[in-house]
Amino acid sequence: MASFKLTIAYDGTGFVGWQRQPVGISVQGLLEDALRALDGREVAAAAAGRTDAGVHALGQVVSVTLRRSIAKGSLIRALNTRLPAAVRVLDAEPAPASFHARFDARTKSYRYRIWNADVLNPFERAYAWHIARPALDVSAMDAAASAIVGRHDFSAFRGTGSASPNSERVVFSSGVSADGALIIYEVSGEGFLRHMVRNIVGTLVEVGRGRQSPLWMPRVIASRNRAAGGRTAPPEGLFLVRVGYDGSSAPLAAER
Amino acid sequence: MASFKLTIAYDGTGFVGWQRQPVGISVQGLLEDALRALDGREVAAAAAGRTDAGVHALGQVVSVTLRRSIAKGSLIRALNTRLPAAVRVLDAEPAPASFHARFDARTKSYRYRIWNADVLNPFERAYAWHIARPALDVSAMDAAASAIVGRHDFSAFRGTGSASPNSERVVFSSGVSADGALIIYEVSGEGFLRHMVRNIVGTLVEVGRGRQSPLWMPRVIASRNRAAGGRTAPPEGLFLVRVGYDGSSAPLAAER
Repeated sequence: MASFKLTIAYDGTGFVGWQRQPVGISVQGLLEDALRALDGREVAAAAAGRTDAGVHALGQVVSVTLRRSIAKGSLIRALNTRLPAAVRVLDAEPAPASFHARFDARTKSYRYRIWNADVLNPFERAYAWHIARPALDVSAMDAAASAIVGRHDFSAFRGTGSASPNSERVVFSSGVSADGALIIYEVSGEGFLRHMVRNIVGTLVEVGRGRQSPLWMPRVIASRNRAAGGRTAPPEGLFLVRVGYDGSSAPLAAER
Repeated sequence: MASFKLTIAYDGTGFVGWQRQPVGISVQGLLEDALRALDGREVAAAAAGRTDAGVHALGQVVSVTLRRSIAKGSLIRALNTRLPAAVRVLDAEPAPASFHARFDARTKSYRYRIWNADVLNPFERAYAWHIARPALDVSAMDAAASAIVGRHDFSAFRGTGSASPNSERVVFSSGVSADGALIIYEVSGEGFLRHMVRNIVGTLVEVGRGRQSPLWMPRVIASRNRAAGGRTAPPEGLFLVRVGYDGSSAPLAAER
Protein backbone atom coordinates (compact mmCIF):
# COMPACT_ATOMS: atom_id res chain seq x y z
CA MET A 1 0.00 0.00 0.00
CA ALA A 2 1.35 3.43 -0.95
CA SER A 3 -0.36 6.66 0.10
CA PHE A 4 0.18 9.94 -1.70
CA LYS A 5 -0.58 13.60 -1.30
CA LEU A 6 -1.43 14.79 -4.82
CA THR A 7 -1.44 18.49 -5.77
CA ILE A 8 -3.75 19.07 -8.72
CA ALA A 9 -4.97 22.01 -10.79
CA TYR A 10 -8.14 22.14 -12.84
CA ASP A 11 -10.19 24.40 -15.02
CA GLY A 12 -13.62 23.88 -13.44
CA THR A 13 -15.52 25.00 -16.56
CA GLY A 14 -18.00 22.33 -17.60
CA PHE A 15 -17.49 20.13 -14.55
CA VAL A 16 -20.16 19.55 -11.89
CA GLY A 17 -17.46 20.34 -9.30
CA TRP A 18 -14.96 18.23 -7.39
CA GLN A 19 -17.49 15.75 -6.03
CA ARG A 20 -19.17 12.95 -7.98
CA GLN A 21 -22.79 13.72 -8.85
CA PRO A 22 -25.57 11.53 -10.29
CA VAL A 23 -25.23 13.37 -13.62
CA GLY A 24 -22.27 15.19 -15.15
CA ILE A 25 -18.49 14.99 -15.12
CA SER A 26 -16.75 15.56 -11.79
CA VAL A 27 -13.04 16.03 -11.12
CA GLN A 28 -13.24 13.29 -8.48
CA GLY A 29 -14.81 10.92 -11.02
CA LEU A 30 -12.09 11.64 -13.61
CA LEU A 31 -9.30 11.20 -11.06
CA GLU A 32 -10.77 8.03 -9.55
CA ASP A 33 -11.23 6.56 -13.07
CA ALA A 34 -7.55 7.28 -13.83
CA LEU A 35 -6.48 5.79 -10.48
CA ARG A 36 -8.58 2.65 -11.04
CA ALA A 37 -7.03 2.14 -14.50
CA LEU A 38 -3.59 2.48 -12.91
CA ASP A 39 -4.12 0.38 -9.77
CA GLY A 40 -6.53 -2.24 -11.12
CA ARG A 41 -9.15 -1.65 -8.42
CA GLU A 42 -11.34 1.11 -7.00
CA VAL A 43 -9.31 3.92 -5.38
CA ALA A 44 -11.03 6.63 -3.33
CA ALA A 45 -9.74 10.20 -3.78
CA ALA A 46 -10.41 12.69 -0.95
CA ALA A 47 -9.91 16.41 -1.70
CA ALA A 48 -9.08 19.20 0.73
CA GLY A 49 -11.82 21.45 -0.65
CA ARG A 50 -15.00 20.26 -2.37
CA THR A 51 -15.15 22.95 -5.05
CA ASP A 52 -18.55 23.62 -6.62
CA ALA A 53 -19.49 23.44 -10.31
CA GLY A 54 -17.48 25.96 -12.35
CA VAL A 55 -15.00 26.69 -9.53
CA HIS A 56 -11.30 26.29 -10.43
CA ALA A 57 -8.28 24.98 -8.55
CA LEU A 58 -4.65 26.03 -8.84
CA GLY A 59 -3.42 23.88 -5.95
CA GLN A 60 -6.10 21.47 -4.74
CA VAL A 61 -4.74 18.66 -2.53
CA VAL A 62 -6.03 15.08 -2.77
CA SER A 63 -5.17 12.03 -0.66
CA VAL A 64 -5.11 8.58 -2.26
CA THR A 65 -3.85 5.11 -1.30
CA LEU A 66 -2.70 2.70 -4.02
CA ARG A 67 -2.20 -1.06 -3.74
CA ARG A 68 0.88 -1.10 -5.95
CA SER A 69 3.98 0.89 -5.14
CA ILE A 70 4.95 3.44 -7.77
CA ALA A 71 7.55 6.20 -8.03
CA LYS A 72 6.32 9.79 -7.73
CA GLY A 73 7.28 10.77 -11.30
CA SER A 74 5.65 7.68 -12.80
CA LEU A 75 2.45 8.33 -10.86
CA ILE A 76 2.26 11.94 -12.08
CA ARG A 77 2.84 10.91 -15.70
CA ALA A 78 0.48 7.90 -15.59
CA LEU A 79 -2.38 10.00 -14.17
CA ASN A 80 -1.84 12.93 -16.53
CA THR A 81 -1.85 10.55 -19.51
CA ARG A 82 -5.30 9.35 -18.46
CA LEU A 83 -6.79 12.71 -17.43
CA PRO A 84 -8.19 15.38 -19.79
CA ALA A 85 -5.95 18.45 -20.23
CA ALA A 86 -8.36 20.47 -18.05
CA VAL A 87 -7.16 18.47 -15.01
CA ARG A 88 -3.45 18.15 -14.24
CA VAL A 89 -1.56 16.44 -11.46
CA LEU A 90 1.22 18.90 -10.58
CA ASP A 91 2.90 16.97 -7.81
CA ALA A 92 2.71 13.71 -5.82
CA GLU A 93 4.41 13.26 -2.46
CA PRO A 94 4.50 10.00 -0.48
CA ALA A 95 2.30 10.42 2.61
CA PRO A 96 1.55 8.36 5.73
CA ALA A 97 -1.40 5.98 5.35
CA SER A 98 -3.27 8.10 7.91
CA PHE A 99 -3.03 11.28 5.76
CA HIS A 100 -6.39 12.78 4.81
CA ALA A 101 -6.35 15.85 2.54
CA ARG A 102 -9.44 17.41 4.11
CA PHE A 103 -9.22 16.51 7.79
CA ASP A 104 -5.49 17.30 8.01
CA ALA A 105 -5.64 20.63 6.16
CA ARG A 106 -4.57 23.59 8.35
CA THR A 107 -4.98 26.50 5.93
CA LYS A 108 -6.78 27.19 2.68
CA SER A 109 -6.34 30.13 0.34
CA TYR A 110 -8.86 31.27 -2.23
CA ARG A 111 -8.79 33.94 -4.91
CA TYR A 112 -11.81 35.58 -6.50
CA ARG A 113 -11.49 37.50 -9.77
CA ILE A 114 -13.79 40.30 -11.00
CA TRP A 115 -13.57 41.93 -14.44
CA ASN A 116 -14.72 45.53 -13.95
CA ALA A 117 -15.06 47.10 -17.42
CA ASP A 118 -17.86 47.62 -19.92
CA VAL A 119 -16.66 44.82 -22.21
CA LEU A 120 -15.61 41.47 -20.75
CA ASN A 121 -12.23 40.29 -22.05
CA PRO A 122 -13.14 37.07 -23.94
CA PHE A 123 -10.21 35.25 -22.28
CA GLU A 124 -11.75 35.98 -18.87
CA ARG A 125 -15.27 34.79 -19.59
CA ALA A 126 -14.87 31.55 -17.61
CA TYR A 127 -12.47 32.96 -15.00
CA ALA A 128 -14.02 36.16 -13.65
CA TRP A 129 -17.30 37.76 -12.60
CA HIS A 130 -18.13 40.51 -15.10
CA ILE A 131 -19.32 43.71 -13.43
CA ALA A 132 -19.63 46.24 -16.25
CA ARG A 133 -20.29 49.30 -14.17
CA PRO A 134 -19.96 51.32 -12.04
CA ALA A 135 -16.19 51.27 -11.48
CA LEU A 136 -15.98 49.52 -8.11
CA ASP A 137 -14.38 51.35 -5.19
CA VAL A 138 -11.46 49.02 -4.53
CA SER A 139 -10.25 50.88 -1.43
CA ALA A 140 -13.68 50.61 0.18
CA MET A 141 -13.83 46.90 -0.73
CA ASP A 142 -10.39 46.35 0.80
CA ALA A 143 -11.43 48.15 4.00
CA ALA A 144 -14.57 45.99 4.22
CA ALA A 145 -12.52 42.84 3.48
CA SER A 146 -10.28 43.52 6.49
CA ALA A 147 -13.27 43.04 8.81
CA ILE A 148 -13.31 39.37 7.81
CA VAL A 149 -9.95 38.71 9.50
CA GLY A 150 -10.09 36.90 12.84
CA ARG A 151 -12.30 34.30 14.52
CA HIS A 152 -15.96 34.88 13.73
CA ASP A 153 -19.23 33.05 13.51
CA PHE A 154 -19.69 33.25 9.72
CA SER A 155 -23.36 32.16 9.65
CA ALA A 156 -24.07 35.29 7.59
CA PHE A 157 -21.94 33.87 4.78
CA ARG A 158 -23.00 30.25 5.08
CA GLY A 159 -24.64 28.76 2.02
CA THR A 160 -27.68 26.51 2.21
CA GLY A 161 -26.76 22.85 2.32
CA SER A 162 -23.64 23.48 4.42
CA ALA A 163 -22.97 20.27 6.33
CA SER A 164 -20.77 21.71 9.08
CA PRO A 165 -22.34 21.80 12.58
CA ASN A 166 -20.06 24.72 13.54
CA SER A 167 -20.07 28.04 11.72
CA GLU A 168 -17.06 29.55 13.49
CA ARG A 169 -13.94 29.91 11.37
CA VAL A 170 -10.60 31.73 11.66
CA VAL A 171 -9.53 33.93 8.73
CA PHE A 172 -5.84 34.95 8.59
CA SER A 173 -5.85 37.45 5.74
CA SER A 174 -8.45 39.07 3.52
CA GLY A 175 -7.78 41.83 0.99
CA VAL A 176 -8.83 43.35 -2.31
CA SER A 177 -6.48 44.74 -4.96
CA ALA A 178 -6.78 45.86 -8.58
CA ASP A 179 -4.68 45.43 -11.71
CA GLY A 180 -6.35 47.43 -14.48
CA ALA A 181 -9.86 46.05 -15.06
CA LEU A 182 -9.11 42.99 -12.94
CA ILE A 183 -10.11 43.17 -9.26
CA ILE A 184 -8.77 40.38 -7.08
CA TYR A 185 -9.95 39.26 -3.66
CA GLU A 186 -7.51 37.02 -1.77
CA VAL A 187 -8.51 35.27 1.44
CA SER A 188 -6.71 32.74 3.58
CA GLY A 189 -7.94 30.94 6.66
CA GLU A 190 -8.25 27.74 8.66
CA GLY A 191 -11.25 26.69 6.64
CA PHE A 192 -14.38 28.00 4.98
CA LEU A 193 -18.09 27.22 5.06
CA ARG A 194 -19.92 26.21 1.90
CA HIS A 195 -20.25 29.28 -0.45
CA MET A 196 -18.57 31.44 2.21
CA VAL A 197 -16.02 33.07 -0.12
CA ARG A 198 -18.61 33.72 -2.84
CA ASN A 199 -21.02 35.21 -0.27
CA ILE A 200 -18.25 37.46 1.10
CA VAL A 201 -17.47 38.63 -2.45
CA GLY A 202 -21.12 39.40 -3.17
CA THR A 203 -21.15 41.51 0.00
CA LEU A 204 -17.85 43.25 -0.87
CA VAL A 205 -19.32 44.20 -4.25
CA GLU A 206 -22.22 46.00 -2.53
CA VAL A 207 -19.56 48.10 -0.78
CA GLY A 208 -17.63 48.54 -4.04
CA ARG A 209 -20.79 49.84 -5.72
CA GLY A 210 -21.17 52.43 -2.96
CA ARG A 211 -24.49 51.03 -1.78
CA GLN A 212 -22.98 50.30 1.63
CA SER A 213 -19.99 51.62 3.58
CA PRO A 214 -17.10 49.39 4.67
CA LEU A 215 -18.55 49.54 8.20
CA TRP A 216 -21.48 47.50 6.95
CA MET A 217 -19.29 44.38 6.78
CA PRO A 218 -18.85 43.85 10.55
CA ARG A 219 -22.60 44.43 10.95
CA VAL A 220 -23.37 41.75 8.36
CA ILE A 221 -21.04 39.33 10.17
CA ALA A 222 -22.65 40.15 13.53
CA SER A 223 -26.14 39.59 12.12
CA ARG A 224 -25.42 35.86 11.54
CA ASN A 225 -28.16 36.23 8.97
CA ARG A 226 -27.51 35.17 5.36
CA ALA A 227 -30.18 37.60 4.14
CA ALA A 228 -28.26 40.58 5.59
CA GLY A 229 -25.37 40.48 3.07
CA GLY A 230 -24.93 40.60 -0.69
CA ARG A 231 -25.75 37.96 -3.28
CA THR A 232 -23.66 34.85 -3.89
CA ALA A 233 -20.98 35.72 -6.45
CA PRO A 234 -20.95 33.38 -9.48
CA PRO A 235 -18.66 30.33 -9.35
CA GLU A 236 -16.44 31.04 -12.36
CA GLY A 237 -14.47 33.77 -10.58
CA LEU A 238 -13.38 31.50 -7.71
CA PHE A 239 -10.05 29.66 -7.47
CA LEU A 240 -8.83 27.36 -4.70
CA VAL A 241 -5.21 28.57 -4.68
CA ARG A 242 -3.46 26.38 -2.10
CA VAL A 243 -3.91 24.17 0.92
CA GLY A 244 -1.43 24.09 3.79
CA TYR A 245 -0.56 21.25 6.20
CA ASP A 246 1.57 20.97 9.33
CA GLY A 247 5.21 21.01 8.44
CA SER A 248 4.63 21.61 4.75
CA SER A 249 5.74 24.63 2.81
CA ALA A 250 3.31 26.05 0.28
CA PRO A 251 2.76 23.33 -2.34
CA LEU A 252 3.36 23.75 -6.04
CA ALA A 253 0.44 25.52 -7.69
CA ALA A 254 -0.55 26.42 -11.22
CA GLU A 255 -0.87 30.07 -12.24
CA ARG A 256 -3.89 32.16 -13.12
CA MET B 1 -23.87 54.93 -44.97
CA ALA B 2 -21.57 54.81 -41.92
CA SER B 3 -18.16 53.12 -41.97
CA PHE B 4 -16.41 51.92 -38.83
CA LYS B 5 -13.07 50.59 -37.73
CA LEU B 6 -13.89 47.89 -35.18
CA THR B 7 -11.30 46.55 -32.75
CA ILE B 8 -12.22 43.04 -31.67
CA ALA B 9 -10.77 40.31 -29.46
CA TYR B 10 -11.55 36.61 -29.66
CA ASP B 11 -10.65 33.29 -28.17
CA GLY B 12 -9.98 31.28 -31.35
CA THR B 13 -10.59 27.91 -29.67
CA GLY B 14 -13.21 25.95 -31.59
CA PHE B 15 -13.47 28.39 -34.49
CA VAL B 16 -12.34 27.59 -38.04
CA GLY B 17 -10.46 30.91 -37.99
CA TRP B 18 -11.38 34.44 -39.01
CA GLN B 19 -12.57 33.58 -42.50
CA ARG B 20 -15.85 31.89 -43.42
CA GLN B 21 -15.41 28.22 -44.38
CA PRO B 22 -17.83 25.74 -45.95
CA VAL B 23 -18.08 23.96 -42.58
CA GLY B 24 -17.61 25.26 -39.03
CA ILE B 25 -18.02 28.50 -37.14
CA SER B 26 -15.86 31.45 -38.22
CA VAL B 27 -15.39 34.78 -36.46
CA GLN B 28 -16.26 36.54 -39.73
CA GLY B 29 -19.50 34.56 -39.96
CA LEU B 30 -20.48 35.42 -36.38
CA LEU B 31 -19.70 39.10 -36.86
CA GLU B 32 -21.44 39.35 -40.23
CA ASP B 33 -24.51 37.61 -38.77
CA ALA B 34 -24.59 40.15 -35.94
CA LEU B 35 -24.13 43.05 -38.39
CA ARG B 36 -26.91 41.76 -40.64
CA ALA B 37 -29.30 41.50 -37.68
CA LEU B 38 -28.42 45.09 -36.78
CA ASP B 39 -28.46 46.67 -40.24
CA GLY B 40 -31.23 44.61 -41.86
CA ARG B 41 -29.08 43.58 -44.85
CA GLU B 42 -25.84 41.75 -45.65
CA VAL B 43 -22.76 43.57 -44.32
CA ALA B 44 -19.26 42.49 -45.33
CA ALA B 45 -16.59 42.49 -42.60
CA ALA B 46 -12.92 42.71 -43.70
CA ALA B 47 -10.23 41.88 -41.12
CA ALA B 48 -6.64 43.11 -40.97
CA GLY B 49 -5.31 39.58 -40.39
CA ARG B 50 -7.00 36.37 -41.49
CA THR B 51 -6.17 34.31 -38.41
CA ASP B 52 -6.20 30.51 -38.82
CA ALA B 53 -8.26 28.00 -36.87
CA GLY B 54 -7.38 28.07 -33.15
CA VAL B 55 -5.44 31.36 -33.42
CA HIS B 56 -6.52 34.13 -31.01
CA ALA B 57 -6.84 37.90 -31.33
CA LEU B 58 -6.37 40.57 -28.67
CA GLY B 59 -6.70 43.52 -31.06
CA GLN B 60 -7.88 42.43 -34.50
CA VAL B 61 -9.17 45.29 -36.64
CA VAL B 62 -12.21 44.95 -38.92
CA SER B 63 -13.71 47.43 -41.41
CA VAL B 64 -17.48 47.53 -41.95
CA THR B 65 -19.96 49.87 -43.62
CA LEU B 66 -23.52 50.09 -42.31
CA ARG B 67 -26.56 51.53 -44.04
CA ARG B 68 -28.01 53.05 -40.91
CA SER B 69 -26.11 55.58 -38.85
CA ILE B 70 -25.46 54.53 -35.29
CA ALA B 71 -23.49 55.92 -32.34
CA LYS B 72 -20.23 54.19 -31.47
CA GLY B 73 -21.38 53.03 -28.02
CA SER B 74 -24.67 51.68 -29.37
CA LEU B 75 -22.84 49.77 -32.09
CA ILE B 76 -20.46 48.15 -29.59
CA ARG B 77 -23.32 47.14 -27.29
CA ALA B 78 -25.59 45.91 -30.09
CA LEU B 79 -22.87 43.70 -31.57
CA ASN B 80 -21.72 42.30 -28.23
CA THR B 81 -25.30 41.42 -27.33
CA ARG B 82 -25.50 39.30 -30.50
CA LEU B 83 -22.02 37.75 -30.37
CA PRO B 84 -20.97 34.80 -28.21
CA ALA B 85 -18.77 35.73 -25.20
CA ALA B 86 -15.71 34.30 -27.00
CA VAL B 87 -15.85 37.25 -29.43
CA ARG B 88 -15.99 40.83 -28.13
CA VAL B 89 -16.07 44.17 -29.87
CA LEU B 90 -13.72 46.36 -27.78
CA ASP B 91 -13.99 49.58 -29.75
CA ALA B 92 -15.64 51.15 -32.80
CA GLU B 93 -14.34 54.32 -34.43
CA PRO B 94 -16.00 56.14 -37.34
CA ALA B 95 -13.84 55.69 -40.45
CA PRO B 96 -13.85 57.05 -44.02
CA ALA B 97 -15.85 54.94 -46.49
CA SER B 98 -12.56 54.10 -48.22
CA PHE B 99 -11.04 52.52 -45.07
CA HIS B 100 -10.04 48.87 -45.48
CA ALA B 101 -8.69 47.07 -42.41
CA ARG B 102 -6.29 44.87 -44.37
CA PHE B 103 -5.09 47.05 -47.24
CA ASP B 104 -4.59 50.11 -45.01
CA ALA B 105 -2.77 48.29 -42.19
CA ARG B 106 0.80 49.56 -41.67
CA THR B 107 1.99 47.34 -38.82
CA LYS B 108 0.95 44.09 -37.19
CA SER B 109 2.12 42.64 -33.91
CA TYR B 110 1.88 39.00 -32.94
CA ARG B 111 2.68 37.11 -29.75
CA TYR B 112 3.42 33.41 -29.48
CA ARG B 113 3.26 31.64 -26.08
CA ILE B 114 5.12 28.44 -25.13
CA TRP B 115 4.63 26.58 -21.83
CA ASN B 116 8.00 24.99 -21.04
CA ALA B 117 7.49 22.64 -18.06
CA ASP B 118 6.79 18.95 -17.58
CA VAL B 119 3.14 19.51 -16.75
CA LEU B 120 1.02 21.89 -18.82
CA ASN B 121 -0.92 24.39 -16.69
CA PRO B 122 -4.57 23.47 -17.43
CA PHE B 123 -5.43 27.16 -17.89
CA GLU B 124 -2.87 27.37 -20.71
CA ARG B 125 -4.00 24.32 -22.69
CA ALA B 126 -5.70 26.39 -25.41
CA TYR B 127 -3.29 29.35 -25.22
CA ALA B 128 0.24 27.94 -25.43
CA TRP B 129 2.39 25.30 -27.14
CA HIS B 130 3.40 22.74 -24.52
CA ILE B 131 7.08 21.80 -24.74
CA ALA B 132 7.71 19.57 -21.73
CA ARG B 133 11.48 19.29 -22.00
CA PRO B 134 14.29 20.10 -22.32
CA ALA B 135 14.27 23.55 -20.73
CA LEU B 136 14.58 25.80 -23.79
CA ASP B 137 17.57 28.13 -24.05
CA VAL B 138 15.75 31.47 -24.09
CA SER B 139 18.90 33.55 -24.67
CA ALA B 140 19.78 31.51 -27.74
CA MET B 141 16.20 31.82 -29.01
CA ASP B 142 16.30 35.58 -28.49
CA ALA B 143 19.60 35.84 -30.38
CA ALA B 144 18.13 33.82 -33.27
CA ALA B 145 14.96 35.93 -33.21
CA SER B 146 16.97 39.13 -33.74
CA ALA B 147 18.03 37.84 -37.17
CA ILE B 148 14.41 38.19 -38.30
CA VAL B 149 14.51 42.00 -37.99
CA GLY B 150 14.82 43.94 -41.25
CA ARG B 151 13.68 43.51 -44.82
CA HIS B 152 14.02 39.89 -45.97
CA ASP B 153 12.59 37.47 -48.47
CA PHE B 154 10.75 35.20 -46.00
CA SER B 155 10.06 32.33 -48.45
CA ALA B 156 11.65 29.98 -45.89
CA PHE B 157 8.78 30.75 -43.49
CA ARG B 158 5.98 30.87 -46.02
CA GLY B 159 3.21 28.33 -45.53
CA THR B 160 1.64 26.42 -48.38
CA GLY B 161 -1.43 28.13 -49.75
CA SER B 162 0.00 31.62 -49.23
CA ALA B 163 -1.74 33.88 -51.75
CA SER B 164 0.79 36.72 -51.77
CA PRO B 165 2.87 37.09 -54.97
CA ASN B 166 5.66 38.77 -53.01
CA SER B 167 7.48 37.08 -50.14
CA GLU B 168 9.48 40.12 -48.99
CA ARG B 169 8.44 41.63 -45.69
CA VAL B 170 9.86 44.16 -43.22
CA VAL B 171 10.07 43.11 -39.57
CA PHE B 172 10.58 45.90 -37.00
CA SER B 173 11.14 43.93 -33.82
CA SER B 174 11.50 40.28 -32.88
CA GLY B 175 12.42 38.96 -29.44
CA VAL B 176 11.99 36.11 -26.98
CA SER B 177 11.57 36.47 -23.21
CA ALA B 178 10.59 34.18 -20.33
CA ASP B 179 8.39 34.55 -17.27
CA GLY B 180 8.71 31.32 -15.29
CA ALA B 181 7.50 28.41 -17.41
CA LEU B 182 6.01 30.80 -19.96
CA ILE B 183 8.20 31.70 -22.95
CA ILE B 184 6.93 34.55 -25.09
CA TYR B 185 7.92 35.48 -28.64
CA GLU B 186 6.89 38.98 -29.73
CA VAL B 187 7.19 40.11 -33.33
CA SER B 188 6.08 43.27 -35.08
CA GLY B 189 6.32 44.16 -38.75
CA GLU B 190 4.71 45.63 -41.85
CA GLY B 191 2.97 42.36 -42.56
CA PHE B 192 3.40 38.61 -42.44
CA LEU B 193 3.06 35.70 -44.87
CA ARG B 194 0.67 32.88 -44.15
CA HIS B 195 2.00 30.74 -41.23
CA MET B 196 5.12 32.92 -41.10
CA VAL B 197 5.04 33.56 -37.34
CA ARG B 198 4.32 29.90 -36.53
CA ASN B 199 7.14 28.78 -38.86
CA ILE B 200 9.56 31.23 -37.23
CA VAL B 201 8.57 29.87 -33.80
CA GLY B 202 9.12 26.27 -34.89
CA THR B 203 12.59 27.30 -36.05
CA LEU B 204 13.34 29.23 -32.84
CA VAL B 205 12.42 26.13 -30.83
CA GLU B 206 15.08 24.09 -32.69
CA VAL B 207 17.58 26.68 -31.46
CA GLY B 208 16.07 26.62 -27.96
CA ARG B 209 16.47 22.84 -27.84
CA GLY B 210 20.17 23.24 -28.70
CA ARG B 211 19.86 21.35 -31.97
CA GLN B 212 20.98 24.45 -33.87
CA SER B 213 22.92 27.59 -32.97
CA PRO B 214 21.41 31.09 -33.27
CA LEU B 215 23.56 31.55 -36.40
CA TRP B 216 21.39 28.97 -38.11
CA MET B 217 18.50 31.46 -38.34
CA PRO B 218 20.05 33.79 -40.97
CA ARG B 219 21.04 30.69 -42.99
CA VAL B 220 17.45 29.41 -42.90
CA ILE B 221 16.20 32.83 -44.08
CA ALA B 222 18.81 32.91 -46.88
CA SER B 223 17.85 29.40 -48.04
CA ARG B 224 14.35 30.63 -49.06
CA ASN B 225 13.45 26.98 -48.56
CA ARG B 226 10.59 26.05 -46.23
CA ALA B 227 12.17 22.62 -45.64
CA ALA B 228 15.31 24.24 -44.17
CA GLY B 229 13.69 25.47 -40.94
CA GLY B 230 11.73 23.97 -38.05
CA ARG B 231 8.18 22.68 -37.98
CA THR B 232 5.08 24.88 -37.95
CA ALA B 233 4.25 25.67 -34.33
CA PRO B 234 0.65 24.79 -33.38
CA PRO B 235 -2.01 27.51 -33.74
CA GLU B 236 -3.20 27.72 -30.13
CA GLY B 237 -0.08 29.61 -28.96
CA LEU B 238 -0.55 32.46 -31.46
CA PHE B 239 -2.19 35.83 -30.74
CA LEU B 240 -2.72 38.76 -33.11
CA VAL B 241 -1.96 41.51 -30.60
CA ARG B 242 -2.55 44.76 -32.51
CA VAL B 243 -2.74 46.38 -35.91
CA GLY B 244 -1.44 49.87 -36.62
CA TYR B 245 -2.60 52.45 -39.19
CA ASP B 246 -1.30 55.80 -40.34
CA GLY B 247 -2.03 58.43 -37.75
CA SER B 248 -3.49 56.03 -35.22
CA SER B 249 -2.09 55.32 -31.81
CA ALA B 250 -2.06 51.72 -30.65
CA PRO B 251 -5.69 50.62 -30.46
CA LEU B 252 -7.38 49.22 -27.39
CA ALA B 253 -6.57 45.54 -26.97
CA ALA B 254 -7.64 42.78 -24.62
CA GLU B 255 -5.10 41.18 -22.31
CA ARG B 256 -3.59 37.71 -22.27
